[in-house]
Amino acid sequence: MATELIRPILTVDVVLLTLHDDRIQVVLQAREKAPHAGQLALIGGYVHPEEDPSTQTAAARVLRGKAGLSVRVLEQLMTFSGGSRDPRGWSASVAYYALLPHRDFAARGDASLRMLPVAEAKGLPFDHDAIVAGAIQRCRRRAAYSSLPAFLLPPEFTLPELRRAYEAALGRSLNDSAFRRKIDELRMIEPVAGSLSKVTARPAQLFRLTKANVVEFDRTV
Amino acid sequence: MATELIRPILTVDVVLLTLHDDRIQVVLQAREKAPHAGQLALIGGYVHPEEDPSTQTAAARVLRGKAGLSVRVLEQLMTFSGGSRDPRGWSASVAYYALLPHRDFAARGDASLRMLPVAEAKGLPFDHDAIVAGAIQRCRRRAAYSSLPAFLLPPEFTLPELRRAYEAALGRSLNDSAFRRKIDELRMIEPVAGSLSKVTARPAQLFRLTKANVVEFDRTV
Repeated sequence: MATELIRPILTVDVVLLTLHDDRIQVVLQAREKAPHAGQLALIGGYVHPEEDPSTQTAAARVLRGKAGLSVRVLEQLMTFSGGSRDPRGWSASVAYYALLPHRDFAARGDASLRMLPVAEAKGLPFDHDAIVAGAIQRCRRRAAYSSLPAFLLPPEFTLPELRRAYEAALGRSLNDSAFRRKIDELRMIEPVAGSLSKVTARPAQLFRLTKANVVEFDRTV
Repeated sequence: MATELIRPILTVDVVLLTLHDDRIQVVLQAREKAPHAGQLALIGGYVHPEEDPSTQTAAARVLRGKAGLSVRVLEQLMTFSGGSRDPRGWSASVAYYALLPHRDFAARGDASLRMLPVAEAKGLPFDHDAIVAGAIQRCRRRAAYSSLPAFLLPPEFTLPELRRAYEAALGRSLNDSAFRRKIDELRMIEPVAGSLSKVTARPAQLFRLTKANVVEFDRTV
């Protein structure tokens, strides 16, 4: 008789990041079932070979199915594995990070979801602390040379909003005029014709990412 | 009766890179078994939950067991997955890249192993072409800000050898004096006391990485 091959558990976990109060926040979900039932953890689940074309689409399915959310940026971080990270057995979890404008999170109004500033998202079950730390580090690096932080905002935003998104993602403040020069050089954004933000007392011009910058990330989803 | 959970296949694949004739080369291995028996492919294998503490150690075990090689740099690239990449079923492969001095490869003398310049390593089975392309891209990026290319060389090397390793990894030529200045600034290397290379007519000083630079990568293995 052939020995049955022991196959590890394969899951996906998503570090869902948003921007609120000028800070990067991670969206966690109360676990429905054991292990760690009731505890806040990353949004995640099993890969379903019978329906998932890839782990990437599995992560999107889990976000949609468990949290009712869809995102414009969903990128693979790395895979965490081992025999002790999950009491159900030897497992590998392909970790992703995703960016969501806060208003999309707020509109969802799902009581199982909770947003925490990254510094306070500690003591999570499994190895989720390490996964969150890895995602923050990766996002910080990506923010230094890409339009990534813009995806923390709605598709139309003011220049000050964009600068604050960069500052939160980079974890440091930026000189305003140097920031504007850099954004100009990169041709990252374009004004939205006839659109002014009415959030502040003085209406401000609204911008959006240029097509090339949106496409860069859409390719990865 | 409970429905048996369909668990995907979990493998590791290693993009083993070396430097020869001033070009980055990838070490491939003839496959022993179906699928694609006899064809050259990345060195890889199943993850063994009963013996592998992680996919990282699985990759090191496979390199050692199938190719008799151990490496100083072994880093996770990303996970490739899906139902059509492997005829045995839905699979996820955690891909790694590893760097090996050419003399270690030559000393091994394993007839199942073959070294090919990266540009010629095309038409590989599974999705190995995409995995190789991803590894080259990642190494190029890493080379721009780290000591990674030094690991293509033996632990002691001359400055011209180090420059050629950087040029091969970056895929472009470097100005020699600017290169020396940069290496100095980064305090990346130190002279090996009393050691001169006798490979060329005029003996040249040998250098090695400073401890901090070796440690950076040793942490990842």
